[in-house]
Amino acid sequence: MKLAHSSGRAGSQPLAPVDLVPRFKAQGYTAADVARRRLWVEHKTGVRLDHVATCSVPTEQMRGNIENPIGTVQMPLGIAGPLRVCGDHASGTFYVPLATSEGALVRSYERGMVTLTRAGGVTTRVELDENRVCPVFMFDTVAEASRFIERIDDSVPMLRAEAEATTRHGRLVRVEARQVGRDAIVSFSFTTGDAQGMNMIVKATGRACDWLVARGLASSYHLFSGLSSEKRASTALLGSGKGKTVIAGAKLPAALTKACLHATPEALVKVWHRATIGHFLAGSVGCNAQFANGLAALFIACGQDVANVANAHAGLTTFETTPEGELYASVTLPSLTVATVGGGTALGTSRECLALLGCSGNGNAARFAEIVAATALAGELSMAAAIASGEFVDAHEHYGRNRPAE
Amino acid sequence: MKLAHSSGRAGSQPLAPVDLVPRFKAQGYTAADVARRRLWVEHKTGVRLDHVATCSVPTEQMRGNIENPIGTVQMPLGIAGPLRVCGDHASGTFYVPLATSEGALVRSYERGMVTLTRAGGVTTRVELDENRVCPVFMFDTVAEASRFIERIDDSVPMLRAEAEATTRHGRLVRVEARQVGRDAIVSFSFTTGDAQGMNMIVKATGRACDWLVARGLASSYHLFSGLSSEKRASTALLGSGKGKTVIAGAKLPAALTKACLHATPEALVKVWHRATIGHFLAGSVGCNAQFANGLAALFIACGQDVANVANAHAGLTTFETTPEGELYASVTLPSLTVATVGGGTALGTSRECLALLGCSGNGNAARFAEIVAATALAGELSMAAAIASGEFVDAHEHYGRNRPAE
Amino acid sequence: MKLAHSSGRAGSQPLAPVDLVPRFKAQGYTAADVARRRLWVEHKTGVRLDHVATCSVPTEQMRGNIENPIGTVQMPLGIAGPLRVCGDHASGTFYVPLATSEGALVRSYERGMVTLTRAGGVTTRVELDENRVCPVFMFDTVAEASRFIERIDDSVPMLRAEAEATTRHGRLVRVEARQVGRDAIVSFSFTTGDAQGMNMIVKATGRACDWLVARGLASSYHLFSGLSSEKRASTALLGSGKGKTVIAGAKLPAALTKACLHATPEALVKVWHRATIGHFLAGSVGCNAQFANGLAALFIACGQDVANVANAHAGLTTFETTPEGELYASVTLPSLTVATVGGGTALGTSRECLALLGCSGNGNAARFAEIVAATALAGELSMAAAIASGEFVDAHEHYGRNRPAE
Amino acid sequence: MKLAHSSGRAGSQPLAPVDLVPRFKAQGYTAADVARRRLWVEHKTGVRLDHVATCSVPTEQMRGNIENPIGTVQMPLGIAGPLRVCGDHASGTFYVPLATSEGALVRSYERGMVTLTRAGGVTTRVELDENRVCPVFMFDTVAEASRFIERIDDSVPMLRAEAEATTRHGRLVRVEARQVGRDAIVSFSFTTGDAQGMNMIVKATGRACDWLVARGLASSYHLFSGLSSEKRASTALLGSGKGKTVIAGAKLPAALTKACLHATPEALVKVWHRATIGHFLAGSVGCNAQFANGLAALFIACGQDVANVANAHAGLTTFETTPEGELYASVTLPSLTVATVGGGTALGTSRECLALLGCSGNGNAARFAEIVAATALAGELSMAAAIASGEFVDAHEHYGRNRPAE
Repeated sequence: MKLAHSSGRAGSQPLAPVDLVPRFKAQGYTAADVARRRLWVEHKTGVRLDHVATCSVPTEQMRGNIENPIGTVQMPLGIAGPLRVCGDHASGTFYVPLATSEGALVRSYERGMVTLTRAGGVTTRVELDENRVCPVFMFDTVAEASRFIERIDDSVPMLRAEAEATTRHGRLVRVEARQVGRDAIVSFSFTTGDAQGMNMIVKATGRACDWLVARGLASSYHLFSGLSSEKRASTALLGSGKGKTVIAGAKLPAALTKACLHATPEALVKVWHRATIGHFLAGSVGCNAQFANGLAALFIACGQDVANVANAHAGLTTFETTPEGELYASVTLPSLTVATVGGGTALGTSRECLALLGCSGNGNAARFAEIVAATALAGELSMAAAIASGEFVDAHEHYGRNRPAE
Repeated sequence: MKLAHSSGRAGSQPLAPVDLVPRFKAQGYTAADVARRRLWVEHKTGVRLDHVATCSVPTEQMRGNIENPIGTVQMPLGIAGPLRVCGDHASGTFYVPLATSEGALVRSYERGMVTLTRAGGVTTRVELDENRVCPVFMFDTVAEASRFIERIDDSVPMLRAEAEATTRHGRLVRVEARQVGRDAIVSFSFTTGDAQGMNMIVKATGRACDWLVARGLASSYHLFSGLSSEKRASTALLGSGKGKTVIAGAKLPAALTKACLHATPEALVKVWHRATIGHFLAGSVGCNAQFANGLAALFIACGQDVANVANAHAGLTTFETTPEGELYASVTLPSLTVATVGGGTALGTSRECLALLGCSGNGNAARFAEIVAATALAGELSMAAAIASGEFVDAHEHYGRNRPAE
Repeated sequence: MKLAHSSGRAGSQPLAPVDLVPRFKAQGYTAADVARRRLWVEHKTGVRLDHVATCSVPTEQMRGNIENPIGTVQMPLGIAGPLRVCGDHASGTFYVPLATSEGALVRSYERGMVTLTRAGGVTTRVELDENRVCPVFMFDTVAEASRFIERIDDSVPMLRAEAEATTRHGRLVRVEARQVGRDAIVSFSFTTGDAQGMNMIVKATGRACDWLVARGLASSYHLFSGLSSEKRASTALLGSGKGKTVIAGAKLPAALTKACLHATPEALVKVWHRATIGHFLAGSVGCNAQFANGLAALFIACGQDVANVANAHAGLTTFETTPEGELYASVTLPSLTVATVGGGTALGTSRECLALLGCSGNGNAARFAEIVAATALAGELSMAAAIASGEFVDAHEHYGRNRPAE
Repeated sequence: MKLAHSSGRAGSQPLAPVDLVPRFKAQGYTAADVARRRLWVEHKTGVRLDHVATCSVPTEQMRGNIENPIGTVQMPLGIAGPLRVCGDHASGTFYVPLATSEGALVRSYERGMVTLTRAGGVTTRVELDENRVCPVFMFDTVAEASRFIERIDDSVPMLRAEAEATTRHGRLVRVEARQVGRDAIVSFSFTTGDAQGMNMIVKATGRACDWLVARGLASSYHLFSGLSSEKRASTALLGSGKGKTVIAGAKLPAALTKACLHATPEALVKVWHRATIGHFLAGSVGCNAQFANGLAALFIACGQDVANVANAHAGLTTFETTPEGELYASVTLPSLTVATVGGGTALGTSRECLALLGCSGNGNAARFAEIVAATALAGELSMAAAIASGEFVDAHEHYGRNRPAE
């Protein structure tokens, strides 16, 4: 992959010449190189990039996070809270940084957070925590694939040794093989500490696969089969999780929902009931009102891999009245692939935003996940209430004013 | 919704006091108010927010995009290209801004773009362009819901008049009703010009619904049923689209895929074949390798509503060999809810990044959508090639270095 | 296809000889030929087929329904009722024939029917009635597929003329095209009168496709793309229906559910609530307790195409309490591909069972569909009640005794 | 449940009287009682049931298979073959009984079987064999549900002892708990010998659940949560199986596919490629052409629970060319809930049809499952070939003549 662009020939034909983005020594992460590259883009396009040039993060720190850097983008950051969380890992009252350009989003989440805090807080739990890679091994016949699967159990100790030799943080917790036609898909499930860990476990899995080939158990494989649903919504995420499976719940008295959310518990359940129907009709992955909003805003603020919104937004919200007439509300997020180390977590604003939540660095990923789940619950309540009370349009009229001139 | 936090009483009980984020006159968008709010957060949490304070966008411009602003977050921006696009709307060679902190992402997309450009470029088409809101009307019995549905066709002209009275850009193109039990879900489909348009069409739909109630055709409704799959992955998006349905395709000679992607057309088809199996097993929405990566990076760079990655990443990639031994590769993205006006598109770096693509402002949404689709195709080729050639791990070792210390 | 088995050569190699089922003049539908074929099977396998030989339907009537006939199979038939239906098409009290070998099934449906009848009956509606075929046209490039789609609207009158020339009962009501990559999938939607109609509309669609090829608009197509979900469960069925979309609902006082179902409305809603969660987790198509049981039993009894259970069982059940404390229960079946003419509907027991419901022959398909939906509702109530009351195991202990000796 | 119909009062109100199907002593399974009941239906409806009365199975044998029996229904039975199977359990050449009223079905499967037999036969494997019940336990809070789940692992030995005390054939192989909101869904997975086993394992699971309640670990549960996908299509079936997971594959030379199926391997792969697209668009559960047809016909013939077609038809077909230009075709059926003992397997024609395949009685379920899978593969080949060659309409014109008069 490294040399792809320098190749000048396709077989005997010279490749068509193209105007590549300029190459620099050591990939060009010095401030000067970044400026030169930006200048090249400005010349090429005739567009001035003054805002892009405004960048408080030292450009050398971007190495490993981006290639061909030309600066940074900025996104507005708001603060929502207080959010009281009573979890196994997160305990206390938080003010949550949300990066977005969607008017009313911060206000809506804030409303939910204040309501939950007044109800006594959100209970949170991390129920499962593993990430996985699912390579596929290819055979000539159904019989050969079947034989491979029969023999893989015996190899697990060696696969673990091979995989874990590549990483200090990843632990291989499970190997599961299944056959489809003449292929065998093998799921390697790992714990990854406080990192999101995909690069870590992909490398570890690659090593384990190479061992299987070297031992003659298989002759070829693809490192990805699509089964693991990395950066994709899928039902499999609901069933077996990927990353952290986190649950948040709270009980809210009717007087509180009426005062703060302008809706009775019964009215909120009615909204939820309709939502399940709509989601079934649409073939949605799970059922929730707006996980994606809060997740995207938190992920951008806190240096997460934002593409993981695609898998992380799959999940389930439930609303139910109790025999005492209260509302019990919960969210279940089976695929919170979040991190407090690695990736973009240490960069300028990311580190600051994680620190706001007491979640920067090692030992904090589970805490961060619980805060994310509590935030999601706040969003669900507020959104459902806006639907139940008919206030949605007014709220967006009031807060979301940056629309095209009508 | 506006008064939720000021309410001091829930029924006869006073609400528990909470420590709200400070309120300012006119919601506090002056630079001084933003600084004061940030200072309050710093005091509250003991965290310094120096990077968050670095902000080139005038804070007053954030009104309508965020509440409780405390500054901006920054994300690294890289440039990938050249990408030659031969579309109905986008025509030319582009350098695409990608904001991410995931190492190797820009390089991987760049590789795909260069390959496609050398193949002569990507053909793109916008096949459909509408957005929708799906309120649900509630009745006491199956018979009443059925009667409502029988009568709604006659109301369409008035519904259109009501809806379009609220907007200069939105046009109501279709009204479709379906019954589930004793509910009736009505889909209002609009064109929205160059805006993403959700706020616009939600307001318009609300007005139409109110008219139905005022005329006695229904007595109650919820503005959202969950059917429209806003910010959610769902099969319904694949079937009927939401936002722009965009298609991109290219034919690549075997010599080119071998030289630039280190894989034959047959090897790439083999990867695709396995991917379909993995995606079926997982119950994925569609089948693609990494739409989410490119979409998130482009959406962040260009001021899109990033939560829309949840719906936009649903789509289909196809690889097939031609009788002449070439590869034909395509992507179909049925839910590109992108915009070049409104939302965050006019803010500092967003406007600059859109301008880089010649897509800032009115008249450019279809062009932008075609560039997004071509970018997605580049990502699919590069990812599939990394899988086919076994180079994935090496590439991430080389470029994705910002991992937790091992 | 007709000559496949007689072909003695594959290219220059003779095909391996195989021992075919004996061929007879005129395909062998005389009683003597059927007996001779059965005898051949008995000799071949050493198994006596005395029960299979018991057959009251004249074997010549089987022509068009089966090939290589050797007799009939028998399945026990029970009767459940009374079921009071208040529909647009079905009105009155019915006793429903159910063919099954699953103990407790008839009793369970009967319980639901009696309860519904005591509640005043089931309201039913047929909301949509069309069947479809979705051929796919293949092109060399995205651009060509796009051009085809742009031009197809103009061809609809000619497509209708061609399609309808092949049938007296089928009417082409809609043609919808969508593009995926370089393919164009075209949905041809028909009304089919009282027949299930697949053969009818497949032939009609084939004629229309041939016309498109003859006119040079396309060069090749496959008659089936898989999109129509014939005999398959899919989300698309929930969204757009296939066959008849039928809805049934009823309101049940709490006193009645307690007396007849041993469960309060709240307890039944609680079961439904859990069912939605379980179905989301599983990635089910819709949400219902046991549509398949009743559908299979009715389809077998009434000469329907039983494989259609695969699509017909996709649907939605809803339970909700009313403000007055009653239960409102409904079922929505979007893909009832049922018939009262054609297929197996005229054969011996099938005709008798349809006649029991007043549904044999022309003009009765909608009535039959409403009775099917009302039956499904009965099953849902009874099953949910057995779950709520904890009586499921006891009921099956009592009625389902034909289990393997323990 | 047993007393539901005899209850004459709902609270203080008498229930509305209804005209129940006549009750007999000992539930009325004597030939005389069955005749009297049938006569009652004839009088009630004015329909003569002469064919229904034709019944070679002694009515007393129907006890445990049906309630309120009035006779049997007949369905035409055809024979297809030869089908050569090379499995772990099924080995030899079979003639497969198919009960259907859909013209061309038997001929189509026969064509696929003959082709496969000429190719040397079908390789089959049973990869997994377990059935499951997934009760849901309900708690007041997220915290309580979490505590329950933490403690359940320690209970597994006792759960196993309780569950297995109820059955001689069922073995509890796994207990897996997951939390959703404040509920805990527990999957009890069993092996069930040669029975389909649902009644067996439902009873066993009920006992285990009662033990959990008796020990104070939970206070209430529902025996079914919907997660197990009994008689429903769902993605979960593809992921984890239910019943037998069976795979069948075969390699076919190009000369053979051309001679017998009138299509090249490449043309067949082209059909498969389109099918995957259509199935993704539709949101189908897996991807296959017509599993449901063969399964329904075999299930009816062999006394299976026909409603299981709803889950069993979920599965995956793959077609791929080999480097040598052959076709490799496979089917993977993850949810073959089939049986050779219990249910309807011992009744008259069912026993004869199972015996035809050497599969009647104990020790034969895996063999039967492999034959079913091989039959499914035959259907896929024949259907794909009919699509590729454009012969579908002609075949149905020729064989499927029993359509409504046009």
